[in-house]
Amino acid sequence: MSSLRTALLQSSGRPGDVEYNLKVLAWAAGDAAASGAGLLACPELFLTGYAIGSGVRELAEPADGESADEVARIAAEHGIAVLYGYPERGRNDESAGNEADVADTAGAAHDESGPVYNSAQLIGPDGARLANYRKTHLFGCFEREWFTPGDTPVVQAQLDGVRIGIMICYDVEFPENVRAHALAGTDLLLVPTAQMHPFQFVAESVVPVRAFENQMYVAYVNRVGTEGEFEFVGLSCLAGPDGIVRTRAGRAEQLVAADVDAAFLKESRADNPYLHDRRPELYGSLM
Amino acid sequence: MSSLRTALLQSSGRPGDVEYNLKVLAWAAGDAAASGAGLLACPELFLTGYAIGSGVRELAEPADGESADEVARIAAEHGIAVLYGYPERGRNDESAGNEADVADTAGAAHDESGPVYNSAQLIGPDGARLANYRKTHLFGCFEREWFTPGDTPVVQAQLDGVRIGIMICYDVEFPENVRAHALAGTDLLLVPTAQMHPFQFVAESVVPVRAFENQMYVAYVNRVGTEGEFEFVGLSCLAGPDGIVRTRAGRAEQLVAADVDAAFLKESRADNPYLHDRRPELYGSLM
Repeated sequence: MSSLRTALLQSSGRPGDVEYNLKVLAWAAGDAAASGAGLLACPELFLTGYAIGSGVRELAEPADGESADEVARIAAEHGIAVLYGYPERGRNDESAGNEADVADTAGAAHDESGPVYNSAQLIGPDGARLANYRKTHLFGCFEREWFTPGDTPVVQAQLDGVRIGIMICYDVEFPENVRAHALAGTDLLLVPTAQMHPFQFVAESVVPVRAFENQMYVAYVNRVGTEGEFEFVGLSCLAGPDGIVRTRAGRAEQLVAADVDAAFLKESRADNPYLHDRRPELYGSLM
Repeated sequence: MSSLRTALLQSSGRPGDVEYNLKVLAWAAGDAAASGAGLLACPELFLTGYAIGSGVRELAEPADGESADEVARIAAEHGIAVLYGYPERGRNDESAGNEADVADTAGAAHDESGPVYNSAQLIGPDGARLANYRKTHLFGCFEREWFTPGDTPVVQAQLDGVRIGIMICYDVEFPENVRAHALAGTDLLLVPTAQMHPFQFVAESVVPVRAFENQMYVAYVNRVGTEGEFEFVGLSCLAGPDGIVRTRAGRAEQLVAADVDAAFLKESRADNPYLHDRRPELYGSLM
């Protein structure tokens, strides 16, 4: 494990315009790679936009669809890993787990009657699809109308010796979810989000506390501006295991970056042995 | 459920001087009651002091001991409920649960070879012993040398229609513990603490986040000043379910107070349905 410079693309692109959003992603990947970043994380549903109603179903693609291929091409061109949020068209016959998808989607049937997930996919710096996560805790009426919740709480991948975990927006507000990642060894939790007014307390306070209480880095990557009924608050950040925010965006479109320091993480975990001091036998009521 | 004005006594009293500390408690109870408070919360091990080495065992008392009687007299005199931290001498033959203690300690054998718990007891405004909690998550070498951990994670009592929960210091840093209280219906969590440098992030950030993510009020009541090897950071606070701190002490001895507003709590819970949106079937790894 070494150091992994992580860039956060705080942008809403153009809701509904996948082609344009892939251009923004390509620009950001180039810029991030040039500044030394090994990973670029984009917001929730960055590929398509968030508040586009039935558009999230119409524009949904399988995890190995055309846009995934284009993101893979961009990642490989710049030699940088990319996490992006998108509406995932599942197979008609599948359950909501994640594991099968990376390997098994080729040739399977996907049509408009099947499930659509609010997903985030991690592509490696060589263009390989490393992990695909389906949001397990859907937020509000809008998401529940259009998406099927995922059923796999912890999805991880290795990148430069760092164990990456993925969740999406509302998921991180549940301490149970982040704790499950800590117990599974996540070093850097990537959280694409669509965080709206008046919930900026989550960006400002909950995210740094999650990093501290679980002794990990947490990257929270938000949308900005007004979209439909929603006003996204920006404030993307990368918080360390000491609870200190390494970089914090404002409320405009912005690309920010900071280092995930593996040596510091190891020291911090030795100084804050929360996982060791847990008493799981007392936590039965949480199930 | 109505409104409960809650006072926090941020003080270390005089470590090792129980008689003096009871006088401080009496003064604070009178002052708090005069200002309209229905509840006074004191820090961890307020009765005896924290960094007094073997003194925490020598000064330990049963939950119905002489000092409990004196606190009950003070509470009844001023018509105010009092929560105070103290080293509790358990019975030689008991397990580490809490339930039996309020009812069954009278006449039981307590001697110096038995277990000593880091406890907090809630006395009602009529002097009745309402609840007694034994810290389940001991912190550091000092506490593990002198104390036996408790085995009952959730201890509650009703006061003026508000469901009070009790935990102590390090307990609150584990999201599992506070979640268990939320699931059990705690409205106001009282957390006597001995929070030391360099962990002020807990007082400043973790406590407000606990209140928000669990939709409850959390009162965090700290010691101050230097005691042995420890420098206590003060910063006692009462945080609401919106994550906003209602009152925050500085780093000196101080009595602060703010209202626990039952109507606001109800509204906030309706707006932030975390408990409803949990998916306990996904949290199996936490056990």
